[in-house]
Amino acid sequence: MHFPVWVDGIVDGRVHPGDRGLAYGDGLFETLRVQQGRALFAAGHFSRLLAGSEALYLNIDLPVLRDRFAAFLAECPADCIAKIIVTRGSGGRGYWPDPAATPTVLFSAHPLPDTPALHAEAGVRAGVCTLRLAEQPALAGHKHLNRLEQVLLRRELEMLEADEALVLDTEGWVVEGVFSNVFLVSGDELRTPRIEVAGVRGVLRAAILHEAAARGHKVVQGLYGPEDFMAADEVFFCNSVNGVWPVRSLGAREWTPGPVTRHWQDFWQEQGCAP
Amino acid sequence: MHFPVWVDGIVDGRVHPGDRGLAYGDGLFETLRVQQGRALFAAGHFSRLLAGSEALYLNIDLPVLRDRFAAFLAECPADCIAKIIVTRGSGGRGYWPDPAATPTVLFSAHPLPDTPALHAEAGVRAGVCTLRLAEQPALAGHKHLNRLEQVLLRRELEMLEADEALVLDTEGWVVEGVFSNVFLVSGDELRTPRIEVAGVRGVLRAAILHEAAARGHKVVQGLYGPEDFMAADEVFFCNSVNGVWPVRSLGAREWTPGPVTRHWQDFWQEQGCAP
Repeated sequence: MHFPVWVDGIVDGRVHPGDRGLAYGDGLFETLRVQQGRALFAAGHFSRLLAGSEALYLNIDLPVLRDRFAAFLAECPADCIAKIIVTRGSGGRGYWPDPAATPTVLFSAHPLPDTPALHAEAGVRAGVCTLRLAEQPALAGHKHLNRLEQVLLRRELEMLEADEALVLDTEGWVVEGVFSNVFLVSGDELRTPRIEVAGVRGVLRAAILHEAAARGHKVVQGLYGPEDFMAADEVFFCNSVNGVWPVRSLGAREWTPGPVTRHWQDFWQEQGCAP
Repeated sequence: MHFPVWVDGIVDGRVHPGDRGLAYGDGLFETLRVQQGRALFAAGHFSRLLAGSEALYLNIDLPVLRDRFAAFLAECPADCIAKIIVTRGSGGRGYWPDPAATPTVLFSAHPLPDTPALHAEAGVRAGVCTLRLAEQPALAGHKHLNRLEQVLLRRELEMLEADEALVLDTEGWVVEGVFSNVFLVSGDELRTPRIEVAGVRGVLRAAILHEAAARGHKVVQGLYGPEDFMAADEVFFCNSVNGVWPVRSLGAREWTPGPVTRHWQDFWQEQGCAP
């Protein structure tokens, strides 16, 4: 199976060493699950890319990018992960970019994750990371290329011997997982941390929030501590690549996957995702 | 004049699109002033690189890197800026790196900055940025590749019509400038913000702190607000590339460059820097 890489449309291209994506993490990315040749939640991914480009003052031509991505997808395995990186391109002096810089656009395909089926079926062991996310409202929500915190958190996750973990901000509020968003169910309410000062507004998170509201469910974005998750009826992680993972343990607390979690697993699969 | 670029020793090499420096800003950089073929403050730059590599768990072989950098310098113009980027290299799954990944090492040469001589002679106009630095003790001090805050701040600086500007952390304490560190002089005391939760521990800042202490001057790293800078006898910015810039105005406050600032300008020049 061949997993193509395109750099500005060039097959197996390479990146200029002066690219600001490399120099400063000056750019954005998206990771899409592709099944049967279709990129799932594509509208959500492109919408987030657009929001991020506005926050970073990146000049991207979204219709052109979407067309090129469609051409790229046609060259990819039917089932894969497709990653998009858009950087500000090269040029400028120090942190000041060349206003005429042309963004660099990278497309790359990767195998589907080899996460155990058990993660979705029986649930995952969750931990709580000690490293806190810094609070930067100007960047919160966006999937930008400044991800050193996640690299350090992913390392900490490995030490915790957990499958995913709650990550807190400097104030001690839960923001998300290391590579997912997180929801809790309390009675008839679906709750998820608001993403205002840290964290990424996940595409599956947004789809769940939208769908839940459309169906008249009670859904709240608020401030929750780890103790709120411990006390919840159900807890689940979600991301558009891995889907929905029930949490089966968090510290001493244990759960079996509940009906609300199963509902959102079904929702993810209905979008075309194979479990 | 030819300004060489080496990627892992390859002249005019390019970067693999899967490099984690690009994907996550997972790496470090240093920018050195080279004059008459000599990299100034080289020990300080390599010492910071080493500290950063420990914080990020990057496996760099510093003696080898220094040897290769010396070979690179021999190909550079006698007076230039030499930039080093070290990334974690390629590989791994998502945020989790391949433990066997080989760091990517980029060397590139650039022209000396064309900043007006007036900046050092008469001083600069300083502003105060509104964007605050997020507080992340795990990354503070290090010159890592996650520099989106600086990109946004540099943009704000342009709007301010200032030459440099004070940048505050979330708590409101001054941390540094947009691309420099900052000192204030109050009576016989030299003061500079401590770099514990945000900011970069500049190489010239460290050299000044070291030299001042060695000579028995009173020197303090503390918490200072913009009002402490307004009330100071002298204020100056410093970085190892641009040297020492006296501040001639900050809001309504004006100064003429004072003796302590001139002393540290002399110190910078004595290291071999042409003004």
